[in-house]
Formats: sequence, structure tokens, C-alpha cells
Amino acid sequence: MSEFQPKNNDFENVVRSSFSRQPFMEFVGARLGLVEPGSCEITAEHQIGLTQQHGFFHGGLVSSLADSAAGYAAYSLFPKDSTVLTVDFKVNFLNPSDGERLRAHGEVIRAGRTLYHVSGSVYAERNGVETLCMKGLFTMMCLHGRSDAAKLGKEKEMA
Amino acid sequence: MSEFQPKNNDFENVVRSSFSRQPFMEFVGARLGLVEPGSCEITAEHQIGLTQQHGFFHGGLVSSLADSAAGYAAYSLFPKDSTVLTVDFKVNFLNPSDGERLRAHGEVIRAGRTLYHVSGSVYAERNGVETLCMKGLFTMMCLHGRSDAAKLGKEKEMA
Amino acid sequence: MSEFQPKNNDFENVVRSSFSRQPFMEFVGARLGLVEPGSCEITAEHQIGLTQQHGFFHGGLVSSLADSAAGYAAYSLFPKDSTVLTVDFKVNFLNPSDGERLRAHGEVIRAGRTLYHVSGSVYAERNGVETLCMKGLFTMMCLHGRSDAAKLGKEKEMA
Amino acid sequence: MSEFQPKNNDFENVVRSSFSRQPFMEFVGARLGLVEPGSCEITAEHQIGLTQQHGFFHGGLVSSLADSAAGYAAYSLFPKDSTVLTVDFKVNFLNPSDGERLRAHGEVIRAGRTLYHVSGSVYAERNGVETLCMKGLFTMMCLHGRSDAAKLGKEKEMA
Repeated sequence: MSEFQPKNNDFENVVRSSFSRQPFMEFVGARLGLVEPGSCEITAEHQIGLTQQHGFFHGGLVSSLADSAAGYAAYSLFPKDSTVLTVDFKVNFLNPSDGERLRAHGEVIRAGRTLYHVSGSVYAERNGVETLCMKGLFTMMCLHGRSDAAKLGKEKEMA
Repeated sequence: MSEFQPKNNDFENVVRSSFSRQPFMEFVGARLGLVEPGSCEITAEHQIGLTQQHGFFHGGLVSSLADSAAGYAAYSLFPKDSTVLTVDFKVNFLNPSDGERLRAHGEVIRAGRTLYHVSGSVYAERNGVETLCMKGLFTMMCLHGRSDAAKLGKEKEMA
Repeated sequence: MSEFQPKNNDFENVVRSSFSRQPFMEFVGARLGLVEPGSCEITAEHQIGLTQQHGFFHGGLVSSLADSAAGYAAYSLFPKDSTVLTVDFKVNFLNPSDGERLRAHGEVIRAGRTLYHVSGSVYAERNGVETLCMKGLFTMMCLHGRSDAAKLGKEKEMA
Repeated sequence: MSEFQPKNNDFENVVRSSFSRQPFMEFVGARLGLVEPGSCEITAEHQIGLTQQHGFFHGGLVSSLADSAAGYAAYSLFPKDSTVLTVDFKVNFLNPSDGERLRAHGEVIRAGRTLYHVSGSVYAERNGVETLCMKGLFTMMCLHGRSDAAKLGKEKEMA
């Protein structure tokens, strides 16, 4: 299904392990869905704490899910002993993020040696119908030879 | 200090009231700082729940604070009986968001009738020293004649 | 093929007429290709004047074609007596724009009343093979009741 | 004046030499202005061929000048034997680019080892008064050990 070949056969475990070490994802109740080479899904259920003044999911939360989904879509293609950092992203809000559930989907467009270009989409599900509410472009960086599990020190001067 | 003239003399109360109705800001422990015409600051203290796998503030959280600060910078210049929505934003991550505290600052660059272009910066404070960790460009929209306090219904077909 | 219904049945003539009034497109040798509701293609042949120091098409030229293609993709869905302006765009360069010919494609993702979100892609053709070299997200604005044919004066305070 | 220290004392000649090898800049009549460590200016005079249907400078041309200015702002800080490529950029159009002359200014915000974050601004001068018409954020990449003067071949798989 995917056009990408993972460099690390254990990519799914590696992604799931990293996700479980992102406290912010747990904090907002996000769950990791399907992980495939170059592709990743993250969902979050509605809770008041995630909304803005009009009752929609907050745009920052919407882009946070997309950022993580895009990062892990890229990370699924990285070699062993590497970690991922977001260089930049751009998001367009197309429709209000109104519903019971958000589903963010990241998909790698171009995998380089160091830089990965990733497309991100977020859908809001309301009464069983999904509406595309955000579309984004993400630039991710592969830090070769850096552990994903440790708090970065000097290596944080990364790019 | 600001080059902008507010259209609503009560702009500060209007901004503070709207901020207090953004549950996501409370959820992440964000606090509204200085509000001036065309300018707004939001801070958040470090807590484990806001971090990613390397111990830094999560990029999504960083951009969430910037999004709200940029939105309220714009909103401070809106006329009465209007509300604000984010059209799009782009953020570049310059340095790891490492520290005890984040400070997001939004500043309007150009105020139109409908569209507001806003610059956003986020600083991480560590041992009393601030480092610029994110820079962004935000496009905000003024929805004239719409209440900021009500859950939007049909009006959500906004733009 | 398209999911969008044009508001102006004469959309193709309207787009072609506007394109012919964009001197910059003629200046760089760009040609308008297929125009469908919510979709537009623009091509340009290689010439030395369009390149940068490595012999590739200049990134600015690549994004210029994409900007026009995205703008006309949106414009094809506008009502009569309106014109289009670019609010902002973001482009990622995925591969060098190396080849004999560029093909830019704009496709509307979301059509609002005032704002149109458009996806843009640019392909470089080399020896008959196309490579995706740029991907972008564009925000376009519909200026209702403004002529596309006249030099804008006061109306330029548009947004 | 600048906070940046050039790694190559000959940075100005290196930048001017590279600019002279960008045929697209000559094609649009662009001229290189002030070059300082981490900063670069490019100007272009009005000519019909650079405009769009309303008589303003075309947005693609505006962002092209900004892209080159941002790229050379970064390049001025690169070590010897390296070249520069644009990873991505985002531009917001604040005011119509109306006037006799454009001035693009690029300024490095953050210099890393590989990635450079650059702010770009474009001003339109009309009757001696400059108006800010575009603001942008650029991500530039330093390709170490690659000549800026040669047509890239295999090295184009750069990132």
C-alpha cells in the first residue's frame, strides 16, 4: 500500500514506544492508530478541556495532533538510532473542528536523508460523518545517531 | 507604544473575557499576560504533561500558545460584536523549547477589515534567560456581527 | 470529475482572459493548460533566464507558477464580477526543479464565501518523466464586486 | 550591527558571485544591494513584465526576490565550499505591491549547522514612500562540501 520501504523493520514498535514517551499526547488523551511505513494516524476524543470559546476543538490542539502524526509518519522511515524533530509546519483551517472525535493523519511526501516532507490532514467526526478541518505541510528532520529515549542535552543544538 | 488604535475601547476586557472562555488554555495552564492594542502575551509553566519525548515542551503546545497569542493580538483591534478565527499559520522551530516557562507573544503586522496578519514568537525561559524557540506568521479573520461567547452553529460556515 | 460546481458558467473564459492580462506569466513564457472547476494547470518551458546557479528552475519561478495556478483554480469557482488575490502561501521544495518543462497544478481543497484553500503541486519533466518538485498550500481571497480587469485603486485596501 | 560572525571572511564576494550566476535574477532585472553577515537586500524596478492583472508586481515575483534575499542572507554565514538551497518558505501578502520599485530584505533569525531560519520582508516604494507588502519565513539549507558554481548532478539528492 505504501510506496516507502522502512529502513528499520521494527519501525512500528519504535514509533509506538516513542509515542508512549510523549507526555503531551497522553495529557490530551490522544491515541496512536494505524502506523505504516510513511504514514501514521492519531485520534483524540472530545473533552471540554480541548475546546476554544465556540465549543470547537482548539486550533492549537488540532495542529498538535497533526504535528505528532506527521512526525511519526516520518519517523517510521528513519534508520535505527535516530530521532525526529519538527523543523517547521504550516496549517490551514478549512472547517471548524466540530465533533466527538478528531483523526489526524500524517503521510510522507518525500523522504530525504535528513529532511522529510510530510502532508498532514485532520478530520472531525460528528454523528459518524468525517469532515476535513485542517490541512498542513510539515518539514521533519532526522537526527542520525541520537537516541529518541533520552532527554537531549548538548545535542539540542541540532540543526 | 503601539501603532494601532483599538476600535473598541473596552478591548482589554473583551480579550480577557474571551481567553477565560478558552478551556484549552486553562487545560494547559496558560495565563494571559500583557494585552495592548495589537499585541498579546501568554505564558505557561513547565509541567510534565506538556512535554515530548526529549523533555522539551511539545511543539504543538508551543504553537498552541502562539496561536492564541496571535489571535488575541488581532482580536484586541476588532470592533464590538465580532469574533476571531485562525485562517492559517506557519511556525518555524528555532531552538528546543527547553525551560521552566514559555512566553508567547503575538503582534499584529497588518490590520485589514477582515484579515489580520500577525507575527508570533515564543521564548523558553531557563534559569532566568529567555531563548527564542519559535517564530511564526498567522492569518486571522474578523467575523463581523458574530458573538464570541456563543457556540457557533450555522455561522461556522464562516469564511 | 470535479466535486465543485462553478458559480459562473463562463468560468473558463473568465480565467483565460485574466491569465492573458497577467504580464508576468507571459514574461516567463508560462502557458495556461487545462482549466476545470476548482482546478488549473500552468506550464513553462526551460529557458536559461528562469534558472538559478545550479541550472535548476529558480524556486521563485516555481512558486510563481504554483501561485498563479492556485489563484486560477480558486477563481474558476468565483461568482461574476469578482477578482482574486493571494492572502498567503507556503511551499516545500521536495526535489530540484530539473528538466525541460515545469507543470504547476492548483486544486481547490475548500471553497468558502471569501476564502479559498488551495493545494498546489509543481512537477519537473525530464526526458518524458515527471518528478514532483514542489508542494504548497495557498489561501486565496475572493473580492466580490471588484473588476478583475482594472488596475485597482482604493480597493487595494482589500482585506 | 549584525549579531552574526561570518565563517568566511570573503562572504560578500561569495554572495555577489553567486547572485551573478542566478540567471533568473538578471531576467527580472533584480539587483543585489547591501550584503552584511546574515542580511541581504535585493531590489527590482517596475516593468510591465513583472506585473499581474491589477498592475501590481506579481506575488510570485515578490516572493522570488524575497526567496533570493533570504537565501543569500543565510549564504553569507556559510563556510567555504558550500551552497544553499531553499527547503521551504511561507509568505503573507499584507498590501498590494504597488510602486516603482521593490526592495526585498532577508535577515537570518537562527543559524544552525545545516538549517538556517530567515525572515523576509518586501517593501514597495511609491513616490518615495515604502510600504511593507510581504512578510515571510524561510528555511534554508547549507550543503557542506558542494560547489555553488557547478550544475548539481547526483548531489541534487541533497537533503
